[in-house]
Amino acid sequence: MKRKAIQDLYPDEFAHCYGCGRLNEKGLHIKSYREGEESVCRYTPESFYSGGVPGCAYGGFIASLIDCHASATASAARLHESGGSPAGPPPRFVAAALKVDFLKPTPVGKELELRGRVKESKGRKVIVSVTLSADGDVCAKGESVLIQMPPR
Amino acid sequence: MKRKAIQDLYPDEFAHCYGCGRLNEKGLHIKSYREGEESVCRYTPESFYSGGVPGCAYGGFIASLIDCHASATASAARLHESGGSPAGPPPRFVAAALKVDFLKPTPVGKELELRGRVKESKGRKVIVSVTLSADGDVCAKGESVLIQMPPR
Repeated sequence: MKRKAIQDLYPDEFAHCYGCGRLNEKGLHIKSYREGEESVCRYTPESFYSGGVPGCAYGGFIASLIDCHASATASAARLHESGGSPAGPPPRFVAAALKVDFLKPTPVGKELELRGRVKESKGRKVIVSVTLSADGDVCAKGESVLIQMPPR
Repeated sequence: MKRKAIQDLYPDEFAHCYGCGRLNEKGLHIKSYREGEESVCRYTPESFYSGGVPGCAYGGFIASLIDCHASATASAARLHESGGSPAGPPPRFVAAALKVDFLKPTPVGKELELRGRVKESKGRKVIVSVTLSADGDVCAKGESVLIQMPPR
């Protein structure tokens, strides 16, 4: 049986995000999976997501990947911490702050790998750090401050 | 005669950005205009750009607006500083870092106003701060570190 992405376990009412919501028909459908203490997302941006430098992704797209992947990382980690079933539903988080360092040009048309890890977790707040790589080279690093939403 | 947006003055080879490139058919076509010492962008996000919270824009979209508007702010300011013609072409910048604080939910389906201002300008580096408001309420603040690209 195919394992579900973290975003595919979000309750329906929180599954319309343009970045990662399974119920958003026009969206990017970013999918993240928990692997050990990290979570991993693989995404191949279409060529029209380029930026000022032809062939390289625009900053907003990179920020979108990091934003949604960080949220999913926090959700999965909090579900795991709380001893909940891995089948969810996981708690949903919203970003309070996002920081991205663009270290190298990020190619479009090539599979990118994002790895997220919880750096701090206290009460409703979780801080997640993310790396984004292409061919094993880290192109961008991000950090997101996330706040757990009430269940409804 | 209608005034051209800063992004509409970028040289063709740098005008394919998904966020703001006039030559990207699928893109967002973010447009910024210099007003006094600031630059201003107005954008009404379609409802499918919502995030985890229904009716509110997702973080990646807000980051995209701030990213492209900050680049345009730096371009226009540098053009002005250098005594270049307001008809351009302005120099093109790429982001080295982006930081966004999400202060309040940002509505979709309503006109948002972004105001950008140069905080620091030295050599090839410009730091721009941006506020994003809806109905006069600041919903997000951003800061972008930008590096001027070589002309070709």
